[in-house]
Amino acid sequence: MYKAPVEEIAFTLNHVAGLADALEIGRFGDLSADLVEAILEEAGRFAGNEMAPLGEIGDKQGACLTDGKVKTPDGWPELYRHWREGGWNGLTAPEAYGGQNLPHMLNVAALEMWNSASMAFALAPTLTMGAIEALVAHGSDALKEKYLAKLVSGEWTGTMNLTEPHAGSDLGVLKTRAERSDDGTYRIFGQKIFITWGEHDAADNIIHLVLARLPDAPAGTRGISLFLVPKFLVGDDGSLEARNDVFCHSIEHKLGIHGSPTCTMIYGDGKYSPGNEEDKGAIGWLIGEENKGLACMFTMMNNARLAVGMQGVAIAEAATQKAVAFAKERTQGKAPGWSGEGMSPIIDHPDIARTLITMKALTQGARAICYACAHATDMSHHAEGDEARHWTERAALLTPIAKSFATDAGVDVASLGIQVHGGMGFIEETGAARYLRDARIAPIYEGTNGIQAIDLVTRKLPLSSGDQVRGFIGELKEIADKISASNNTAFGETGDRLRAAIAALETATGWLLDTQAAGRTADALAGATPYQRLFGLVLTGCYLAKGALVAVDNGGPEKRVALCRFMAENLLAETSALKDRVVSGAASLQAARSILA
Amino acid sequence: MYKAPVEEIAFTLNHVAGLADALEIGRFGDLSADLVEAILEEAGRFAGNEMAPLGEIGDKQGACLTDGKVKTPDGWPELYRHWREGGWNGLTAPEAYGGQNLPHMLNVAALEMWNSASMAFALAPTLTMGAIEALVAHGSDALKEKYLAKLVSGEWTGTMNLTEPHAGSDLGVLKTRAERSDDGTYRIFGQKIFITWGEHDAADNIIHLVLARLPDAPAGTRGISLFLVPKFLVGDDGSLEARNDVFCHSIEHKLGIHGSPTCTMIYGDGKYSPGNEEDKGAIGWLIGEENKGLACMFTMMNNARLAVGMQGVAIAEAATQKAVAFAKERTQGKAPGWSGEGMSPIIDHPDIARTLITMKALTQGARAICYACAHATDMSHHAEGDEARHWTERAALLTPIAKSFATDAGVDVASLGIQVHGGMGFIEETGAARYLRDARIAPIYEGTNGIQAIDLVTRKLPLSSGDQVRGFIGELKEIADKISASNNTAFGETGDRLRAAIAALETATGWLLDTQAAGRTADALAGATPYQRLFGLVLTGCYLAKGALVAVDNGGPEKRVALCRFMAENLLAETSALKDRVVSGAASLQAARSILA
Repeated sequence: MYKAPVEEIAFTLNHVAGLADALEIGRFGDLSADLVEAILEEAGRFAGNEMAPLGEIGDKQGACLTDGKVKTPDGWPELYRHWREGGWNGLTAPEAYGGQNLPHMLNVAALEMWNSASMAFALAPTLTMGAIEALVAHGSDALKEKYLAKLVSGEWTGTMNLTEPHAGSDLGVLKTRAERSDDGTYRIFGQKIFITWGEHDAADNIIHLVLARLPDAPAGTRGISLFLVPKFLVGDDGSLEARNDVFCHSIEHKLGIHGSPTCTMIYGDGKYSPGNEEDKGAIGWLIGEENKGLACMFTMMNNARLAVGMQGVAIAEAATQKAVAFAKERTQGKAPGWSGEGMSPIIDHPDIARTLITMKALTQGARAICYACAHATDMSHHAEGDEARHWTERAALLTPIAKSFATDAGVDVASLGIQVHGGMGFIEETGAARYLRDARIAPIYEGTNGIQAIDLVTRKLPLSSGDQVRGFIGELKEIADKISASNNTAFGETGDRLRAAIAALETATGWLLDTQAAGRTADALAGATPYQRLFGLVLTGCYLAKGALVAVDNGGPEKRVALCRFMAENLLAETSALKDRVVSGAASLQAARSILA
Repeated sequence: MYKAPVEEIAFTLNHVAGLADALEIGRFGDLSADLVEAILEEAGRFAGNEMAPLGEIGDKQGACLTDGKVKTPDGWPELYRHWREGGWNGLTAPEAYGGQNLPHMLNVAALEMWNSASMAFALAPTLTMGAIEALVAHGSDALKEKYLAKLVSGEWTGTMNLTEPHAGSDLGVLKTRAERSDDGTYRIFGQKIFITWGEHDAADNIIHLVLARLPDAPAGTRGISLFLVPKFLVGDDGSLEARNDVFCHSIEHKLGIHGSPTCTMIYGDGKYSPGNEEDKGAIGWLIGEENKGLACMFTMMNNARLAVGMQGVAIAEAATQKAVAFAKERTQGKAPGWSGEGMSPIIDHPDIARTLITMKALTQGARAICYACAHATDMSHHAEGDEARHWTERAALLTPIAKSFATDAGVDVASLGIQVHGGMGFIEETGAARYLRDARIAPIYEGTNGIQAIDLVTRKLPLSSGDQVRGFIGELKEIADKISASNNTAFGETGDRLRAAIAALETATGWLLDTQAAGRTADALAGATPYQRLFGLVLTGCYLAKGALVAVDNGGPEKRVALCRFMAENLLAETSALKDRVVSGAASLQAARSILA
């Protein structure tokens, strides 16, 4: 059973991602290291003891739809109530609405633990947090007054309604329509698919945020507006009134996250309309300005993508814990050098050890990248002028890497975890297969990892004319130089390996900037995904090294040094191949397209 | 829906794996190219039209156990009867028992098609073929006479009973016991797990091959004997008599291959015993000699492992077909250079094209490696003296690479296939997820891929003191040289890239041989899995190049050249990183073991 790695999480937050320094200089007000630790401890306790057991049940039972009502797995409504009563839903929300206004880093760390315990369950608050963020940034005072406190407390949950059958990655073609009503509200008509927690029995009301198009809207992405559409209309005193004309038509039968209802939502087909023709449609309220709906979504996109990245970290952590425990317990054959009685624990076989250490390196690297991304967001909110711009850019640069590298790591580590279990890994009762099933959605939703790569190459590398990424690479070089300067033989070749990997990143970065400047977009995009992985591997190497340096300074255990060396000497060589694909893979890809005709 | 790639299969058999040359010189008697083509066409038709639709149904329904009886999915018993009546079960079996005595290459190609249509279904005959092979090689004349014809026709199916809860990769510790009976038969007592198609409703009798230990057997792997234990006892006239004392206690709830019943079999607990104490136990007949059971298993291990490799090829092919079809149909966004109306087909986006071409390269490489392995087996059966020894060694060398590379490709390609489908890939009805669920077992069973790597490094590289592998590498160099000598600019850098990859393989091979010779087994094993993948990638590059050279000679389409160039310029760079891991990864792995303590 999952046990939250609170110490590792705290170390990464503080010493790799930068929280300790920020606390030291009072960047986050009077937030103390002690309070951070207490929050992490309590989150870890809740995730391990209360959530994880129900996560298994949720996978087995799944969510069920009967007569338009979704029943979540046994115990989930109670678990949700218990969880929100702990105040976890509003960690980063404004104090004015009952939130705790804490740094995102803390929420991201907590999200890791919720997702390790049950990714399907954690999706409910993840979506609610997104709705809160959109409302805080773009909602009118009236909307905030009516909805925010209940969303922050978690009494009501939120959803995001973007996708339609023909409009997934490309939202410009969505068809859901909104009509203006005389009273200043709108009427929404249309069908939305893949709506996570679109209907359920764990909260009294569900607040849908819906992208739709006004009749006179411009075509494409500039003609999309964002609306708030509650499941139950809300009176001025906050009481629940009539059912709005929106319902769940069906839920999906999915590979994983079975406990999370993935709903097709129908707006305005008359099922709940009062009957008279004029009043047809689900009643919605505009968020932000007309036709600026996509901009509203963009403000929360970084956090949403990072939240999905945390799902990858979370699954990787849980899968690694399970595999290590199994490999210590299971005996089979005799490992080289084994002198004990009978069979060796399989963890002693070099191939199993290599697999498990690879899982640990990818997990800790993904965690560090995600936390660093959250740190950049926090810093951008607590700084001004050029410094704020710098951190905003850093968060923007890190987001696609965090999302893609961590979610790929989730899938890869979960798959390796199955392999470590041998035949038992294929049996559902073992629980290792569930991690792969759950993890597999994360590289897809919230922008596929291919789209993250396009975003990274075409929008993030050019930030500040490339100075942002170049500056970042400069910081990474300093870490590599510190390793070399440490003259600590336990690091092996780590310094040289890091420098070579960073050089590969620098070359690939320069090539991509030049190639785009020359207008050769297709050539740049051909290598976008290999580049994104290259960046993630280099960051993993550097962040593990950064942590190892701190551990050495503190006279800490050699384990961090050993893991960082394994990363450098075993996994970083791939960076050279990836660089090669970026700078010289495009021609053969173009030539090979005929194969697909 | 899956359509068998008969032309591609025939091309690979003939021009990459060596069938055309062997037919030309009459190596396989009067077998003609026309007959080969006719067999492949008919297998393709059956797989695509009759088997594939029932494969989907089988995944949804799964196998069910009620009152000790296993019900296979709707239509499967009829499908099985239809299939075996086509004579497919006995393609390679001896003519004396109703088989067709055809080369293994043909059966392997057919297995690919059955497994693409339904891996769960194809497991039944795969196990039967293994039982036939063991009986032919080691059974007494009486056993052959009684059982072989019905197994070859497929009227009865066969199983392999190896695994016990504590004995998976390490069979030396198995506990199932066999006691000698006065009449020359044996009584078997014990529990076996993970028995594929151990019980079902598609055949009249099931012939279990069971590993067990005699009371006076030596400890470990030298004390294991192999027994034939029929579900129903068989009279001298071939009629079915009393039920033997073996039954299916439970079936597993698995990630994939739902239609294939994975059974826990109980031998000799009295459920079907005649009642008197002396007659307890399932009645079994010895195959081969006492205590030589594992040697009997080894004779069929190469073919069994290759058959699992074919599952990887098969899933990769089916997943690729599905993803390509979806990517042509689905439109989203505008690809660079898109000038059409509305949205582009997603296949035009560089990242999707790169993904699909990668899937094709891995699939065709895995296929070529597996077919080449089958060819080596066939040649070893149709040659004598040194030549036979050479081909036996070649098959032995290729087997772990074929099994591991192809099954890893199955998982990787299936996972990429889900990614191409976006959100739809996660929905079970789409069918892409099933491929990943099914594929995930193949790197595990019939010897995990980690165990294949140990086998490759410790047993196969030293064959003929390393001359076998060195000779093979020499052949690969000739292919690379031919590419360079062709002076065909369409090959791009293929010649140089191949040479570099082969050089990496040569270096890693030499290092592994030297390191083992120096007694540093743990260091050699640390890099066994990276080495195995390195070998598979190099073979993929070389076999795609070999096919491309033939296509050019025949004035054929440029597609093979383009795919081989993509492989060389995009995927072969990884070989350098893998070589690096082999020759310099062990130290950091040893140092990092403390992490797992």
